[in-house]
Amino acid sequence: VTGVWIDGVPGRSIEVEDRALQYGDGLFETIAVEAGRPRYLARHLARLRDGARRLAIPLPPEALLREEIEGAAAAAGVVKLILSRGSGPRGYRPPEATPRRIVWALPAVSYPGDWREAGVVLRLCSLRLAVQPALAGLKHLNRLEQVLARAEWPGPIPQEGLLLDSEGHLVGGTQSNVFLRLDGELATPRIERAGVKGVLRGALLDAFAHAGLACHERDLSLAELGRCDAILLTNALIGVWPVREFAGRRLDSAPLAALARECLARAPALD
Amino acid sequence: VTGVWIDGVPGRSIEVEDRALQYGDGLFETIAVEAGRPRYLARHLARLRDGARRLAIPLPPEALLREEIEGAAAAAGVVKLILSRGSGPRGYRPPEATPRRIVWALPAVSYPGDWREAGVVLRLCSLRLAVQPALAGLKHLNRLEQVLARAEWPGPIPQEGLLLDSEGHLVGGTQSNVFLRLDGELATPRIERAGVKGVLRGALLDAFAHAGLACHERDLSLAELGRCDAILLTNALIGVWPVREFAGRRLDSAPLAALARECLARAPALD
Repeated sequence: VTGVWIDGVPGRSIEVEDRALQYGDGLFETIAVEAGRPRYLARHLARLRDGARRLAIPLPPEALLREEIEGAAAAAGVVKLILSRGSGPRGYRPPEATPRRIVWALPAVSYPGDWREAGVVLRLCSLRLAVQPALAGLKHLNRLEQVLARAEWPGPIPQEGLLLDSEGHLVGGTQSNVFLRLDGELATPRIERAGVKGVLRGALLDAFAHAGLACHERDLSLAELGRCDAILLTNALIGVWPVREFAGRRLDSAPLAALARECLARAPALD
Repeated sequence: VTGVWIDGVPGRSIEVEDRALQYGDGLFETIAVEAGRPRYLARHLARLRDGARRLAIPLPPEALLREEIEGAAAAAGVVKLILSRGSGPRGYRPPEATPRRIVWALPAVSYPGDWREAGVVLRLCSLRLAVQPALAGLKHLNRLEQVLARAEWPGPIPQEGLLLDSEGHLVGGTQSNVFLRLDGELATPRIERAGVKGVLRGALLDAFAHAGLACHERDLSLAELGRCDAILLTNALIGVWPVREFAGRRLDSAPLAALARECLARAPALD
C-alpha cells in the first residue's frame, strides 16, 4: 500500500462507529490504473452514483471523487475507493450522517501472461447466490457470499469459481462477470437478481454493440453453459480472460478473448 | 459510549485493512446488561461459536471473550461485540488472519414502558429478504437488507417492521424475532433460509418447553399472520414486546407477553 486517504486526509484507521464496519453499509470500487490514470473512471463513478442512489447514501461531489481517485492513481497500480454511509449510533436505521470516503493507492496486480493468452481454469462453486433485486448489480460491502464462495478452494488455481443463483441461473464468477458463446451467439447473464454489474462488463457490452456484434443480456442456465464453446471472464483489473477449462471440459476461448479486446480497443472511450 | 476495547486494549479506531470494513466479514453480538452482568452470555457465545465455525473464523478463547464482555458490562447498559476475520490483503479469499475483537460498553437503551406493557405497532416491510441458507441464523455483519428495510419508514413508530423472505415465508422483524398464537397454538418461523436466530428467541423456545407449552418452529405465511390473535416481538435488548396493532388490525397480545415473561423468569438459567 502506498497510501490511504480518509476524507482526503492521509490516514490508516477509521473510527469504530463507522457503518461500513458495523453493517457493511456502503459501496466500493476497484479501479485499474494505466500510466498513472484511472481506467474507466466515468463508468466506476456511474456505478457508484447508482449505488448511492439506491442505498440513499448522499454522494460526495463527483469532482471531489475524481480528484481524489486521480491523485491516488498517479502513484498506484490500483485505486480502491470505499464510500461508507459514515458514523452513526447503534441500530439499522440510517442516520443523517456524513458519508466517509476511503481511497487506497495500491500496487498493480500482475498475473501470469498465459492466463490472459492461453486462458484460465474455471470451477463451479457449490454455494448458490441469494436472489435480492434490491441489491443486485451494486458493488456494495456485503460480500460474505463471495468470501464463502472463494473459500471453497485453496490456492490460485482454478483461477475463478462460477456462481449460480438459488433459482439456478448463471450469475458470474466470485470476482468477475462472464460472457459465453453459444450456437454462434454471444450472451452474458442479466444482473437483476444477484451479482455485480462489472465496469468491464458494461464496457464490453458497449464495445460489442459498437462493433455491430449482438450480445444478449439474458437468463442463462448451467445446461447452456455446458453447451457453449467459449467462455470469457471480465473485471476491471484482469480485463478479459479466456477460459480454457470449465468443469473438466476443454474450451478454445482465446480467439473470442482476442476479439473482445479488439472491440474494447476500438470502442469510443467514455472517460 | 463509555468505552471501546480492541483486542483488549482501549481504542477508538481500527485499521482500514480490516475485513469487517472491507467485506462485512465478521459477526456481532449485542448483549443486554442487568446489574452489571451480561444477560444470556452463554447463548450469545454459543451463537458466536456457531457463526465462527460456519464462516471458518478462528474463535478466540471463550474465557477471554467472557472476561472482556464481563469487564465491559460492569460499567455499561449494553455490550456490543464485533468479531472480525481480521486484516488482510485485497481480495475475497479468506487470509490466514488473526481475528479482531471489538468490544463496546454502551449506555442502556430505555424504551417507553407502555411499549412493553400495552404493546407496539408493527408494519409490513415491502423489502423481501433473500434466501441464503449458508448465512441464515447468523448475526453476521452483512446487514444492508436490514438497513434498507428500516429505512422504509422514518421515526420510532411503528416500532418494528416485519419481513417476509422472497418465497413469501415470514422471517421476523428488522431487529427482532416474532412469535404468534394461531388457533391456540404458539409458533415462530424456522430460521433456516433467512433471518437471525435471536438469543431471546432461543431462550423463549426453551422457556415455553420448560413450562410444558408447545411452540412450533415452522413455515408461516402472511395469511396465517393475518389470522393469528397475538404477536410477540423478541430480542436481547427489548425482551418481549406484545404487538397491539399489525397492518391496521388490533391485537390483544399483552397477556401472551406476560405469560412469555413468566416462562422466561421460571426457566433454568443457562449462564
